[in-house]
Amino acid sequence: MRTVSDSAYAPLAEAFLQLISSGGKRLRPALALAGYGLFQSKSDDRAIALAAAVETLHNATLVHDDLIDGSLLRRGNTTLNAVWDKGATVLAGDYLFARAAGFAAETGNVRVVQLFADTLRIICEGELRQHFSSRQWLQSKDSYYTRIFAKTASLFASAISSAAILGEATPEQEQALYEYGRHLGMAFQIVDDVLDYAGDETQLGKPVGGDLRQGIVTLPFFYYAQTQGDPSALAARLDAAVRQNGADMSEIIAEVRTSGAIQRALTEAQELAETARADLAPLPRNAFWQALIELPDFVVARHV
Amino acid sequence: MRTVSDSAYAPLAEAFLQLISSGGKRLRPALALAGYGLFQSKSDDRAIALAAAVETLHNATLVHDDLIDGSLLRRGNTTLNAVWDKGATVLAGDYLFARAAGFAAETGNVRVVQLFADTLRIICEGELRQHFSSRQWLQSKDSYYTRIFAKTASLFASAISSAAILGEATPEQEQALYEYGRHLGMAFQIVDDVLDYAGDETQLGKPVGGDLRQGIVTLPFFYYAQTQGDPSALAARLDAAVRQNGADMSEIIAEVRTSGAIQRALTEAQELAETARADLAPLPRNAFWQALIELPDFVVARHV
Repeated sequence: MRTVSDSAYAPLAEAFLQLISSGGKRLRPALALAGYGLFQSKSDDRAIALAAAVETLHNATLVHDDLIDGSLLRRGNTTLNAVWDKGATVLAGDYLFARAAGFAAETGNVRVVQLFADTLRIICEGELRQHFSSRQWLQSKDSYYTRIFAKTASLFASAISSAAILGEATPEQEQALYEYGRHLGMAFQIVDDVLDYAGDETQLGKPVGGDLRQGIVTLPFFYYAQTQGDPSALAARLDAAVRQNGADMSEIIAEVRTSGAIQRALTEAQELAETARADLAPLPRNAFWQALIELPDFVVARHV
Repeated sequence: MRTVSDSAYAPLAEAFLQLISSGGKRLRPALALAGYGLFQSKSDDRAIALAAAVETLHNATLVHDDLIDGSLLRRGNTTLNAVWDKGATVLAGDYLFARAAGFAAETGNVRVVQLFADTLRIICEGELRQHFSSRQWLQSKDSYYTRIFAKTASLFASAISSAAILGEATPEQEQALYEYGRHLGMAFQIVDDVLDYAGDETQLGKPVGGDLRQGIVTLPFFYYAQTQGDPSALAARLDAAVRQNGADMSEIIAEVRTSGAIQRALTEAQELAETARADLAPLPRNAFWQALIELPDFVVARHV
């Protein structure tokens, strides 16, 4: 099997080695490998190809996201777009999509490839919807959930249900793992969105409230908005804050931080984590099951 | 089978309908369908999925190319990046990659998906190499051929050899069609590169010599450079022309146009077209064979 650094073009290989060795929790490939391990006692090249496919796909979307958002740092390292020009960064992301598709094909399973292609489509549609709904401050909770499914939970779900397909699970087991991945992914993204408000600036490596500053509303803001008597007044205040280039924005972010919204959002993430654990009930018990049952707590505990 | 306009996100569907209905020769899907028709008397959903995959992949690369080059017009229509911002255009291209991968998966054949992923990888590596070798005026003919294989011929070759795989051709027939697609694709790209110098500005819809203005050297320039006594003086003249923002550039382009370089490049395209025709010798004769044997002439005759 070829690796991601095996590129005919040396500067590309170098850039990607830096990218994939720069840390990150590698939850998605872990889901693929653990999901496979539920059904097959020995890992094999197909499971490894799947793990590589999901992590490479994830990194491809990060490369383009960082370009679109103009982010210069990720995981404490400079992003590709901080070093390469726009054109090269677009092409580098495309190259990673190609490698991800190649890894998916190496699983030898057309259903896995189809799921993989569908997931990429859902991710792109979700990103576009987020892009075009920027500064629509009063979005519904439904639209938030649609967005985080697209952005995060869809890949969690397809990573682990693809592992079930490769592991020759029953359709019921496959579906249960899809739901597990979906619930876990949404819990994960809510915690991410909470950390954007409640996290420590030095630990985050970016200013608190970055989402709202970019016009993206998330669950903590949704609950904060509910505590405000006049939604259209709040929207007007945010529009004004954007025009003033951030002065009042920091104040609004501080209000979200100190409101009960953070705790409400975290409680919702904990409920999703609990649901994910329950999704595992019909699945075979082994060491991988044990790891998967503990993972939701780990994901939600990231806030401490 | 889903179509490319079947997107959950309406503005996206609209943008793509405009894109795919904006003309273009649709050579790549034609190769897929004709290649399949050599072996199977009836077309089917798999062949159509393949044709959709290659055309969608091609359009995905065009969306990103136009963004990278800042092109505002293609085929006489405004490009997506002329209307959408950078972020949305990157994501729209990504979305098309996802749809292309989905169509490839709908062929139900893992080898086709693998070939497809490899081709996208080759295209991206080639684009990156072109990007980073901009204004290297004295490139070898080999490096030009490597680039046009990556950029164009690789997709021609994989479109028609994938059709052979789906049509259950023998390995020898598959290889012959791969070579046919490769030679045809290179002839096609050389003619494109010739037209960039020799074409009519109003017909091209862009200024003559656009490649050289962007720092990209192609076969006509290569042969022109050979007629110049002092290569490093020519390179210095081009560097100066870039700094002056184009004054002397138009003169150099006029020199390429009136030199024998255009004819030498065209002769080379004709030879490749002839080789492509010869590649078809071992293949079954039917109406599709007849179409494929005439295609190279059609491709090269575009210069009149």
